Amino acid sequence: MKFEIKDRDAAGRLCKFTTKNGTVTTPNLMPVINPNKMLITPKEMKKLFGTEMVITNSYIIHKDNKLREKALNDGVHKLIDFDGPIMTDSGTFQSYVYGDVNVDPIEIVQFQRDIGSDVGTILDVFGTPDQTKTKAERGIKETLKRAKQSVRVKGKMALACTVQGSIYPELRELCAKKLSSIDGDFFPIGGVVPLMENQRYSDLVKSILYSKRGLNPSKPVHLFGAGHPLIFPLAVALGCDFFDSSAYVKYANDRRMIFSWGTEKLDDLIELPCNCPICSKHTASELKKMDKKEVVLQLAKHNLYVSFAEIKKIKSAIANGSLWELVERRVSANPYLLEAMQELQKEEHKVWLEQSETTSKNKALFYTGNNTIHRPIVYRCRQRLLDRYKPLFGNTVVFPEGKKPYSKYYAKQKDEIKSKANVNILINSYLGPVPIELDEMYPFAQSVFPKKIDEETKTEVAKMFEKFTKNKNVIFWEGKKTLDKLSSSKKKIDEDIARISAVSNMQFGKGASKSLFDGKIDIIKSKKTGKIRNIYNNENHVLSMRAGDGFFTLKIDGAKRLHKSLKYPKLRVTIDNDAVPFVKEGKSVFAKFVVDCDSELRPFDECLIVDEKDHLLAVGRTLLNRDEMLSFEYGMAVKNRENIK
Amino acid sequence: MKFEIKDRDAAGRLCKFTTKNGTVTTPNLMPVINPNKMLITPKEMKKLFGTEMVITNSYIIHKDNKLREKALNDGVHKLIDFDGPIMTDSGTFQSYVYGDVNVDPIEIVQFQRDIGSDVGTILDVFGTPDQTKTKAERGIKETLKRAKQSVRVKGKMALACTVQGSIYPELRELCAKKLSSIDGDFFPIGGVVPLMENQRYSDLVKSILYSKRGLNPSKPVHLFGAGHPLIFPLAVALGCDFFDSSAYVKYANDRRMIFSWGTEKLDDLIELPCNCPICSKHTASELKKMDKKEVVLQLAKHNLYVSFAEIKKIKSAIANGSLWELVERRVSANPYLLEAMQELQKEEHKVWLEQSETTSKNKALFYTGNNTIHRPIVYRCRQRLLDRYKPLFGNTVVFPEGKKPYSKYYAKQKDEIKSKANVNILINSYLGPVPIELDEMYPFAQSVFPKKIDEETKTEVAKMFEKFTKNKNVIFWEGKKTLDKLSSSKKKIDEDIARISAVSNMQFGKGASKSLFDGKIDIIKSKKTGKIRNIYNNENHVLSMRAGDGFFTLKIDGAKRLHKSLKYPKLRVTIDNDAVPFVKEGKSVFAKFVVDCDSELRPFDECLIVDEKDHLLAVGRTLLNRDEMLSFEYGMAVKNRENIK
Repeated sequence: MKFEIKDRDAAGRLCKFTTKNGTVTTPNLMPVINPNKMLITPKEMKKLFGTEMVITNSYIIHKDNKLREKALNDGVHKLIDFDGPIMTDSGTFQSYVYGDVNVDPIEIVQFQRDIGSDVGTILDVFGTPDQTKTKAERGIKETLKRAKQSVRVKGKMALACTVQGSIYPELRELCAKKLSSIDGDFFPIGGVVPLMENQRYSDLVKSILYSKRGLNPSKPVHLFGAGHPLIFPLAVALGCDFFDSSAYVKYANDRRMIFSWGTEKLDDLIELPCNCPICSKHTASELKKMDKKEVVLQLAKHNLYVSFAEIKKIKSAIANGSLWELVERRVSANPYLLEAMQELQKEEHKVWLEQSETTSKNKALFYTGNNTIHRPIVYRCRQRLLDRYKPLFGNTVVFPEGKKPYSKYYAKQKDEIKSKANVNILINSYLGPVPIELDEMYPFAQSVFPKKIDEETKTEVAKMFEKFTKNKNVIFWEGKKTLDKLSSSKKKIDEDIARISAVSNMQFGKGASKSLFDGKIDIIKSKKTGKIRNIYNNENHVLSMRAGDGFFTLKIDGAKRLHKSLKYPKLRVTIDNDAVPFVKEGKSVFAKFVVDCDSELRPFDECLIVDEKDHLLAVGRTLLNRDEMLSFEYGMAVKNRENIK
Repeated sequence: MKFEIKDRDAAGRLCKFTTKNGTVTTPNLMPVINPNKMLITPKEMKKLFGTEMVITNSYIIHKDNKLREKALNDGVHKLIDFDGPIMTDSGTFQSYVYGDVNVDPIEIVQFQRDIGSDVGTILDVFGTPDQTKTKAERGIKETLKRAKQSVRVKGKMALACTVQGSIYPELRELCAKKLSSIDGDFFPIGGVVPLMENQRYSDLVKSILYSKRGLNPSKPVHLFGAGHPLIFPLAVALGCDFFDSSAYVKYANDRRMIFSWGTEKLDDLIELPCNCPICSKHTASELKKMDKKEVVLQLAKHNLYVSFAEIKKIKSAIANGSLWELVERRVSANPYLLEAMQELQKEEHKVWLEQSETTSKNKALFYTGNNTIHRPIVYRCRQRLLDRYKPLFGNTVVFPEGKKPYSKYYAKQKDEIKSKANVNILINSYLGPVPIELDEMYPFAQSVFPKKIDEETKTEVAKMFEKFTKNKNVIFWEGKKTLDKLSSSKKKIDEDIARISAVSNMQFGKGASKSLFDGKIDIIKSKKTGKIRNIYNNENHVLSMRAGDGFFTLKIDGAKRLHKSLKYPKLRVTIDNDAVPFVKEGKSVFAKFVVDCDSELRPFDECLIVDEKDHLLAVGRTLLNRDEMLSFEYGMAVKNRENIK
């Protein structure tokens, strides 16, 4: 089994998951196949919906003599006639529904292995939301015991070890940590179906977050039993990779249609609010008149079209860096999902989510309402400003939100101020305080807000402003009369130098500007836009500024300076000696060769690639954060861009 | 031409629009057909997308000798091979794009008539957003002149008279009013394309609202040039019935794909975030590799699938009373649309929108974020509470938001209080203050909120609370110690009587309870739910309470009492003498027979049907408000439910 990250956004990721039977791109949805009764065959699903992987139930196969014999003789792939990866479930859910199952926990894993399942599942103990903590603890103890025994018999099958722990955060995290320490391959988050059935999305979010905290980040995570697309975007944003759907047929049997915003009864609809091939071919009244068997089939197809479309939307959103926007749009369809978003406002979750957040994105940040200000990227900006930004002067003149970039919009006022006094200029923006030297950095310039914002965002922004300007002398711009309040100064500060210093400290950390710029500085600007492009220190090209996001691309001469002055492990990705020759040839760094990494590096950050003796080898761009680099066995960790010659 | 309302929500409406060539259900979208170059034929559109009506350009037909001759000889339906209703444009947009058109304004109307157009358009003067008020005034003057002349030559063709007025609200309203006074049939809102191109949605919303204020409410309204589904839900909620799309082909030519949330470039997509037949059959990379002609065709089809699906979603939302929720979900996709929503917070717009808002809805009110509290229905509740609700006692005990219905949730506390003192009980809910006697009325009981709400909603609710409790003695419930603060009273108030009194005043207006209940009152409750079902006054069945929305259904004996005590025109719909025999037979009231109507009646309100001498004939449920009843020539105004025997 191989699992590697290809792209990412929020804590979501586009991955390739490979078994001997093929490769699946995640996030993905596995339709549940009932081996006794296939409404739509897996083959047909592949053709219609692009289904890449399915899940079927080994417990059902095992307890039926005919199915068991056929599966053991021909394999599960022949049994359900599908040549892609197949996951099998173990009967845990049946034990939840019927109280108990009549199968040995190790025997069912061996059985899954013997019928050739790609991913087999342990028979874990389903933790219900209403159980006591003691009972939940007993459950995860038994689950862990079975997982350890199951690992020994898994053979070449990937083993799914399900995280339980009811709604107790510490138990979820503990269970996830302990499961991660044994040789599992795939980690479902279990026991969540009753949470989803009762729309307890706040508890669901907590269950996902605490499970994820404890899990090895290099393993696929499956939200077990989640088949309604309503929850897909949020679950992916929190780090789920797989979903399974029996909902498509269950709802169809009930004459209910699944949509991205919820569920509708066919009989309540006067029009089909959808453009899938089923809803494009039929009207509501045509569907209503069909015989029972036919309508179930058509609705099941519709349900899968909608579910897979949501997966495609999520993938597309990850690729263009707009997953949080998709999430925020989707949660507005359901008050209980909005409630779940409030859980994400807690500091501990922001700290955790921030670690996966990429440094910048392909698309501007779009405001969607009062959830936007609580995004991890906003939290990061605030933290970095507090930690890494140092104002140049004692006084600060504050301007309100305006057009972007602010240095252009407030150019006249800025020049008037600068000609008289040396003060900091700060924008009290809708994203929080923005020093004018940082106004071209993502997301300060690359964000779109309405003219007025909601009261909650205002409150949050005011808090950020207060924290940032605490103990500072702040003057709010009130037109020309503000100029009279400023005491004049003769010393002139070069604005470009101020900008490159501030940006380099924000991007690389405190002290970066000092180590990068210590000689004759030449700043080359774009003739077309007037924006800074290239920076030379003593004739050495140290940095380029990217027009898109206002961040620097680190040149090898700049990397040398940072390497010399910033102490290990700052900005470093340290690689195994075996990989050194490859990196020297210009090859990128694979995760399995990373032996250490600066814990402050984030995905898409510029970094220094060094060997185990901290010799600088190259400069590159990360795809993973520290935890991921140290966990992943497959895939790229750093894209190598420029080598030491 | 016939136009009649079938159902409604917000200021949006489901209508039937009929010409001699067929019936169209609105809201609807007319794809633009270029008679020179049909990428997809109208016939194919009908088959694929359920297209019911198309629009083509008479100016283009007129200036091309071949097309002109063919159209004059065979008719425009043969020319483009479509047998449903066809609208034709006049060249106005061409005059905007190219500065001028070489055609006589009256000749082009005659031409449209002669080629058999179902809806022909006047050659109005396109008012750009950047023009001065004087220029805009001159433009509408000329437009009006041409409209008057055009009406004279329209023949049997329905004539579309386009509302202009640039971005000047008073000019929009004036132009709309003047156009409504001449014999036009169809009212496009023109000059809005540059607003949409520049995402000036706030100005667009203003243009729609002020045009609508001036227009005859019984005529179809067309948002001319609006072909992007992003704007459809909001535009429909403000009262637009028709859209036209040339966008489907324009965007396709540019390799761009239309979605409900905006536009994406095909070449930026790694997955097609859609489940339409095109996107279900092809992957992104397959589409990218197609030759130019083929990809344009596929994208155009995709664009129309998406656009028509949005229309179906809107129709479905109107039917189940969730149009505002659809709007609020959609606007979260675009900060400029969110900006436009702020325009709706103005008092004058709330006053106007409230008039179309139905009394109750099939579906619970769902909170989507900070826009929800600004909905017209919330405004109405606040106004009615201030105008129609009278507290019973001097002191008011206030409880915070809780589970619904509040009288059940707070039953214990309520009983403790009532056993000691006579006080009003008020819930400081997320929708504003709710007297406990009204807690089963829509939307107080039929609303879904998350546990916590955003700061903006809190602020709005606090304002409402303050206004409602001004000069009142308010005690916030703090547990048992609150009981000690209450001075005891011996008089017992019957809770059921309090409820039926409060509800009847809220529903029928001040004084209604006095006229309904003046004798021996018997209240029959549901054995199953314990809820009030039927109310008898002196053995006469006066009211039934609906379990779904907590409103009363008025029985004929109740109607008689209200009719006797509430002065004309209160609650009345007055009908023409000619219609009296039909109503006496139990037939419903058609709009054309309404001669007067209480201006406070709203759609779905219970009403008294009376003759011109104010004799009570029947009791019914309105479908229209006063303005609509007096304007509509077709369709039902009041559903007759019970007759005077």
